Amino acid sequence: MDYVYGPGRNHLFVPGPVNIPDPVIRAMTRNNEDYRSPAVPAMTKILLEDVKKIFKTTSGTPFLIPTTGTGAWESALTNTLSPGDRTVSFLIGQFSLLWIDQQQRLGFNVDVVESEWGQGANLDILASKLAADTAHTIKAVCIVHNETATGVTNNLAKVRRILDNYNHPALFLVDGVSSICALDFRMDEWGVDVALTGSQKALSLPTGMGIVCASPKAIEASKTAKSYRVFFDWKDYIKFYNLGTFWPYTPSIQLLYGLRAALDLLFEEGLDNVIERHSRLGKATRLAVEAWGLKNCTQKEEWFSDTVTAVVVPPYIDSSEIVRRAWKRYNLSLGLGLNKVAGKVFRIGHLGNLNELQLLGCLAGVEMVLKDVGYPVKLGSGVAAASAFLQNNTPLIPSRI
Amino acid sequence: MDYVYGPGRNHLFVPGPVNIPDPVIRAMTRNNEDYRSPAVPAMTKILLEDVKKIFKTTSGTPFLIPTTGTGAWESALTNTLSPGDRTVSFLIGQFSLLWIDQQQRLGFNVDVVESEWGQGANLDILASKLAADTAHTIKAVCIVHNETATGVTNNLAKVRRILDNYNHPALFLVDGVSSICALDFRMDEWGVDVALTGSQKALSLPTGMGIVCASPKAIEASKTAKSYRVFFDWKDYIKFYNLGTFWPYTPSIQLLYGLRAALDLLFEEGLDNVIERHSRLGKATRLAVEAWGLKNCTQKEEWFSDTVTAVVVPPYIDSSEIVRRAWKRYNLSLGLGLNKVAGKVFRIGHLGNLNELQLLGCLAGVEMVLKDVGYPVKLGSGVAAASAFLQNNTPLIPSRI
Amino acid sequence: MDYVYGPGRNHLFVPGPVNIPDPVIRAMTRNNEDYRSPAVPAMTKILLEDVKKIFKTTSGTPFLIPTTGTGAWESALTNTLSPGDRTVSFLIGQFSLLWIDQQQRLGFNVDVVESEWGQGANLDILASKLAADTAHTIKAVCIVHNETATGVTNNLAKVRRILDNYNHPALFLVDGVSSICALDFRMDEWGVDVALTGSQKALSLPTGMGIVCASPKAIEASKTAKSYRVFFDWKDYIKFYNLGTFWPYTPSIQLLYGLRAALDLLFEEGLDNVIERHSRLGKATRLAVEAWGLKNCTQKEEWFSDTVTAVVVPPYIDSSEIVRRAWKRYNLSLGLGLNKVAGKVFRIGHLGNLNELQLLGCLAGVEMVLKDVGYPVKLGSGVAAASAFLQNNTPLIPSRI
Amino acid sequence: MDYVYGPGRNHLFVPGPVNIPDPVIRAMTRNNEDYRSPAVPAMTKILLEDVKKIFKTTSGTPFLIPTTGTGAWESALTNTLSPGDRTVSFLIGQFSLLWIDQQQRLGFNVDVVESEWGQGANLDILASKLAADTAHTIKAVCIVHNETATGVTNNLAKVRRILDNYNHPALFLVDGVSSICALDFRMDEWGVDVALTGSQKALSLPTGMGIVCASPKAIEASKTAKSYRVFFDWKDYIKFYNLGTFWPYTPSIQLLYGLRAALDLLFEEGLDNVIERHSRLGKATRLAVEAWGLKNCTQKEEWFSDTVTAVVVPPYIDSSEIVRRAWKRYNLSLGLGLNKVAGKVFRIGHLGNLNELQLLGCLAGVEMVLKDVGYPVKLGSGVAAASAFLQNNTPLIPSRI
Repeated sequence: MDYVYGPGRNHLFVPGPVNIPDPVIRAMTRNNEDYRSPAVPAMTKILLEDVKKIFKTTSGTPFLIPTTGTGAWESALTNTLSPGDRTVSFLIGQFSLLWIDQQQRLGFNVDVVESEWGQGANLDILASKLAADTAHTIKAVCIVHNETATGVTNNLAKVRRILDNYNHPALFLVDGVSSICALDFRMDEWGVDVALTGSQKALSLPTGMGIVCASPKAIEASKTAKSYRVFFDWKDYIKFYNLGTFWPYTPSIQLLYGLRAALDLLFEEGLDNVIERHSRLGKATRLAVEAWGLKNCTQKEEWFSDTVTAVVVPPYIDSSEIVRRAWKRYNLSLGLGLNKVAGKVFRIGHLGNLNELQLLGCLAGVEMVLKDVGYPVKLGSGVAAASAFLQNNTPLIPSRI
Repeated sequence: MDYVYGPGRNHLFVPGPVNIPDPVIRAMTRNNEDYRSPAVPAMTKILLEDVKKIFKTTSGTPFLIPTTGTGAWESALTNTLSPGDRTVSFLIGQFSLLWIDQQQRLGFNVDVVESEWGQGANLDILASKLAADTAHTIKAVCIVHNETATGVTNNLAKVRRILDNYNHPALFLVDGVSSICALDFRMDEWGVDVALTGSQKALSLPTGMGIVCASPKAIEASKTAKSYRVFFDWKDYIKFYNLGTFWPYTPSIQLLYGLRAALDLLFEEGLDNVIERHSRLGKATRLAVEAWGLKNCTQKEEWFSDTVTAVVVPPYIDSSEIVRRAWKRYNLSLGLGLNKVAGKVFRIGHLGNLNELQLLGCLAGVEMVLKDVGYPVKLGSGVAAASAFLQNNTPLIPSRI
Repeated sequence: MDYVYGPGRNHLFVPGPVNIPDPVIRAMTRNNEDYRSPAVPAMTKILLEDVKKIFKTTSGTPFLIPTTGTGAWESALTNTLSPGDRTVSFLIGQFSLLWIDQQQRLGFNVDVVESEWGQGANLDILASKLAADTAHTIKAVCIVHNETATGVTNNLAKVRRILDNYNHPALFLVDGVSSICALDFRMDEWGVDVALTGSQKALSLPTGMGIVCASPKAIEASKTAKSYRVFFDWKDYIKFYNLGTFWPYTPSIQLLYGLRAALDLLFEEGLDNVIERHSRLGKATRLAVEAWGLKNCTQKEEWFSDTVTAVVVPPYIDSSEIVRRAWKRYNLSLGLGLNKVAGKVFRIGHLGNLNELQLLGCLAGVEMVLKDVGYPVKLGSGVAAASAFLQNNTPLIPSRI
Repeated sequence: MDYVYGPGRNHLFVPGPVNIPDPVIRAMTRNNEDYRSPAVPAMTKILLEDVKKIFKTTSGTPFLIPTTGTGAWESALTNTLSPGDRTVSFLIGQFSLLWIDQQQRLGFNVDVVESEWGQGANLDILASKLAADTAHTIKAVCIVHNETATGVTNNLAKVRRILDNYNHPALFLVDGVSSICALDFRMDEWGVDVALTGSQKALSLPTGMGIVCASPKAIEASKTAKSYRVFFDWKDYIKFYNLGTFWPYTPSIQLLYGLRAALDLLFEEGLDNVIERHSRLGKATRLAVEAWGLKNCTQKEEWFSDTVTAVVVPPYIDSSEIVRRAWKRYNLSLGLGLNKVAGKVFRIGHLGNLNELQLLGCLAGVEMVLKDVGYPVKLGSGVAAASAFLQNNTPLIPSRI
C-alpha cells in the first residue's frame, strides 16, 4: 500500500498538502457517525464559531464545504456574482492564473491585471481602474493573498485602502489558500468580503474541506447573484444553520474531528505565535537561499512570502531534476516550478505544523541535492545561515518551560 | 473530543455514512503526501482501472471528485447538459426530490414523473413520454437507482429496454449513491451514461469522494454541454489523465489509500458475494419487520431495497422518537423519516461492510426501542425471524474454511 | 496482514483480551517518546494516583509492569515470599491451577484446596487450616477473585473475615485479572495485600501491562522476601518513584497513553456504573443460557460471574466445535472450555467496554451456532429473555440525556 | 493527553525507544483479537521463522516474550544457569553494569571484567580467565554487543575465537539490545548461544516485546538449569510451540501485527542495506562531532558504534543541560549521560528507521544547543562535515529509481 517505501520519514516541503500533526491524525482515526444525531450539530456549532477566529472576523459567516481550494474559489464567485459581471483580477503566477481561468469559464468578464511572475499585484493599476470606474461596473476585486507558485504575498490592507479611497463598492474576494493560519490576515479590519482556504494548507489537515468565510455584504450579494449553483450554494447551508442541523449534505466526520484538533493546536500555540513561527521559518529559508548564492523568485522584500520560497536555479540546471532527485535520494518532497517558471524554480514550502529542526533537515537536503545536480554549493552554508538566525530567535516551547 | 460518549460501540445503521472497516481506517491513518510525486499518479492509475469494476464497465471513464453525492449529481448534470435542456426525472422520495431540485436550480427543464412515496419510478409514464418525444427534446432520463428515503429500488434494466424500444437517444443518468457496491448494477450492460456514488455509502469510506463514471456517449456530450462548470469539469480531469499526472487539483491522499483498501476488501470478498450478502441482510431485516407486525414503506416486493428498509410505525407513535431513543439508550443510530414520511417511518440502513451478528444486534435494539415507545412488540420475535433465515443461508467465511 | 478477513466486525466475546474502545485505540496511535523527558514522569505520577482508584485503595502502591497477568502473578509472589514458604491456594479451574503451578515452580510449599470445577473456593477448609495454623506457617492465602475458566466469583470479603476471625497474619494475595474494573473490588476495605490485573481484561487495553497493587504490609514483606527477582522487583520501581523518574526500565509509551484514555473513560462512566453495567450484561447472559435450556457451569448463584459465563453443552455436542463454527461462520469469537471442561463448556466473555446491543448480537449468534451443531434451540429465545431484562434495566446514556 | 505540546514533530534521537515507521503504527492501530483462534497461531508460526533471519540463525529457537530488554536478559540467564553458577561478564558502561547487577541478584557468581567507560570489553582478560579455567567452572560468558551508555561496540567474532581457542564449553550470552537489526550480527556463525533484543530498539516498534533466541546448546542447558522461573520459562513456550497454539499466555496482538510490519519493512529494504544505512549515519554523526571539536566517549575506532554516539562535553558544560535545552527549545530528544558519565556526555541515538535528513536536522539542532549552552561551535560545521560524507555515499532509494 506504500508504493514507494523509503526508510525514515518523508520530508514534506511542498507548499501543500502539508504535514498533519499526530494529534490531528489521531483525532481522525475513527469510524463514521450519523451526522443527523444531536452530537454532530452540537460540535459543528462550536467549530463554526472557532473557525471565525482564524479569519479574524466576528461578523463573517463561515462555510465548511466538502471540496478543495478550487471549489472554495467557485463557491466565492458563484455565490456573489452573476454571469457577465466584471471582475478585476491579478495574474501574478500559476494559482492566480487558474483562478482567472475559472472566473472566465464561469462567465464573468475578467479585467486581468498582469505582473511579471515574481512580482506582486500591481495595485497602481487597480487604483486607476477604480478611479475610472465611476459607474461601478467592477463588481469584484479578486486577489490571491499569497501566490503559491512564486512565493509572493500581496498587501491586502493596501487593496482595502485603495477601494476606500475611491469609495468603490466592489466586493473584495481573497484567495487565502496558502496564507490563512500562517500569515497575518484580518478579514474584518481589511474589509474582505469573501476569504477562503483549504484544509490541507496551513491548517495542516488532509485535503477535502474548503473553508469559506463571507462578510454580511457578501451574504447580501448572494441573495441576488444569478450564477447557477447548488452544491456550492450558501443558501442551503444557511437554511440548515437556521434549522440547527447545520448540514445540507453529508460532511466528513473525520475532517470535523480533525478540524477540532487542528484548531485546538492552533489556539494552544496561539494564532499570533503561529504567524510569528512562519515568519521565523520563512526568514531562515531566505537566508539559506542567499547563502547558497541563489536568487529568490520573489523580486522585492515587500512581497516575500513566509509560507513558500521559490528558488531560481542557474540556467544550466533543470529545477525539475532537483525535485525529482530530492525525492529519489533523500525522501524530500519539494515543489516543482509551474508553467512560466517550470524548470527554472523549485519551491520550498514552509507552512503548517513545522518546527526549526524539520526545516534545517530540509535545507541540509536541498544543499546535497544542489551538489548532486552540479551546482557548486558549499555544503552546510545554508544551514549555517539559517541556524544562526534561528538560534537567536527561537523561543522556548511554552508548555515546557 | 467525543461529545457524547457511551460505553461500547456505536451501532451505526443509518443508510449512510456507514461503518468503515478497520483495515480501511488503518490505511487512512497517515500523513499527507506530495500528490505530484511519481507515487500518487502510479497509484491513481490502478485505482481508476479498479473503480471501473464496481460499475461493471470497461468503456466508462471514472472521476474521483473531492465532493459528496450532491456534488457528484452536479458533475453528472453540468457536464452533459446545457441550461434549458429537458430532462425526465422521477420523484419517489426525498433524494430524488433533491436531485430534481438541483436540476431545476441548474436551469434545466425538468419533466417530473411523480409516484407515491413507497412506490418505484413510474416507467409506464416514461414510456409514453419517450413515445411522444419524436423530436428528441428529452436530453436525459435521470433516475435514482435506490431511493434511500423510502427503501425503493428501481428497475434500471427496464429503463434501458424502454429507451431502446423507442430508440431514444436521451442520456441515461443514474444516481447509484445507495446502490453501487451493494446492489446489482451493470453500467455497460444497461447502457447507463453517467453513474455515480459517494464514498461514504456501500464503499464504506469516509465522506468526501464523489465517484462518477461516464460512458463514451456522456464524454462526447460533455464536449458541447454549455452548463458553466470548473470544479466539476471532466475536461480538466481528462487533461491531467492524458498528462499522466491525473489530478487537476489536490486529492485527499487519505481517501486514495482508503479507496485502495476498500477495493481490496471488496475484491477479496468478491463483488457478487458482497451483493449477495446485502441481499441476505436485506431479506433478514424485512422478515424482522414482518414479525414485529409493522409495514414496510416500500409497497411492492419488486421494489424492496437490500440496502435500506423504511419501516412504517403506527399512527400513535412518532418515528423520530424511536430514532432519538435508540441513540440515547442503546447507542443505536437509525435513520429518520424524511419530509413526507417524517414521523411516520424510521429507517434501518443495512449497507456496507456489515455482517449478520451486527444486524441481529441492531434488530434486537429496535425491538427494545419499539417496546420503549409503547408498541406492543414481542421481544425476540424479529431476531427469531431474521436469524431463522440467516442460520439457513449464511455461508462460511471463505478465508476461514 | 489480516490473515482471515471476514466482512464486518469481529464479535469478540472471549473473556480477554477484550474489545478496545476507539478513543483508547486513538490515544495509542502514536510514535515512541523519550521516557526520560520531563513529560513521561509527569504523566506517570498522575496515572499511578488514578490507578489506585480502580483498586479502591488509598494506601496501596501500584506498579505498572510491562508484562502479562502471568508476570503480575509472579511479581506478587516473588516480592512477598521466600522459597519454601507455605501458601494456601484454591484450585477451582484452569487459571487458579496455573497460578498454583507457578507457586510450586517458584519453590513455595503450596497447600492446595481443591473444589469441583464450577464451584467456588472452599472457604470452610481455609477456616480450618487457619484455625490449625497457630504457628503461622501459612505465609499467604492466594485466591483468584474470578476464575475465568468456569465463571466463578469468589467471596473476598469472606476470606478477609476468616483471616480476621483467626487473627491470622498471612498475606492476602488476589488474582483480579478478570474482575478488577468489572466486579466490585475493595482492596483497602477487604484488606487485600496484593491485587493484580492485566491491561487486556476489563481495562480494555492491549495486552502488555501487568497492574499490581501492594498494601503497606506487602511492601514491608518485600523487604525481606528472598525469592530471586530483578525484572519483577518492586524495589527498583520504588527507587525510581523516589527519584521522580518512575521507570527502572523502558515502559510502553503507547500503553501509558492508552491507560490514560482507558481511565478517563472509566471515570467518565463512573466505576460503579461500569460495575453495574457488567452486572446487567452478566444477568442478561445467564437468562439467555437458561432460555436455551443449557446449564451454567457455575453451580450456585452466589458464585455467578458477571464477566464470563461458562455454558455446559449436552454430552453429544463438542463445545470446541461451537467455538470453531462461531468463528468460521459468524465472525464470533467465544472462549473454549479448558482442561477438565474442554469440549464440555464454551465461554461467553462479557467484560470490558461493551454495551447491550453488542451482547444481544453475540447471543443471537450463539443461538445460530447452537442450531448449526445440532442442539434444538429455539432461535430468538435467548435474545428474548436477555432483552426483556435489558429493556427494563438499561439506563439512558448520561451524556445524551 | 499530550502534556507538553510543541509545534511540529518531536525529533527522537535517544538510543531507544526509537521512531516507529508509519506503516508499523498503522499495522498496530487495531482492536484485540482472540489469540486462540486459528489466525494468530498461523501468523505466529511465520513470524517465528522470520525473526530467526534478524539473528542470522537457522538453528536457533526464538521467543517473543511480553517484556522489555531487562526481562529478556532475565530470560537468557534463568533458563540457562543455576544459582551459584560462575559467569564472566564485562563492565564497560551503565547497561553492562545493570546486567551484571541482575546476574548477581539472581544468585550467580559473577566474575566481572571491568574496563574504563569508553573502552570495549577487555578480551585479553577473558582469554586468560578461560585459559586458567581448565575445570570449566565458567558456565557463561555474558557480553553486551553494543553498550548503549558509551557507544561502544564489542567484537563478538573475537569472543567466539577466544572461546574456541581454549575449547571452552561456556555458554556465549549476548545482549544485542542496541545492535540487532542495526549492526552486523551473526548468531550461527559466531556461535552465540543466547542473543536478545527489545522491540523498541532497532526493530522500531513500541516497547513490550523481548526477543530472545536460543541455540540448541542453550535449549539443552535450559533442561537442567535450576534457576526458578515461570513467566520467563522457555519450556512453556516450547510446549505450546509443539501444540501449535504457540502462546503460554496472552501476547499483544498489536505487537504481533507491528512485528509483521516491521519485518516486512526490514526485508523490503534488505537487512544488509539496513546495516549499511546505520553505518552511514553513524559515520556522519562522528564526522559532525569531530567538526564541532568535541570528543567521542568511545576511545578507539574499533569500538565505534553505529547506533549511538556518546559525545563528551568540555568540563565547563553540564551535558544534562544540553539534553534539557534541546527538548525545551527545539523539540529534540537526546540521551542523557548515565552514571559515571552523567553530566559529562550526551548521546545521539541513530538507530532504527531513520534517514539522512532526519539525522542532519538533529545535528543542526545539536549545534544550536551547543551554542545555547556556551560552547563556541561554528554553526553549520557539523552538518557540513556530515553532509559532505552523506552526499557522496547515500544510495538512491531503490523503489524510486
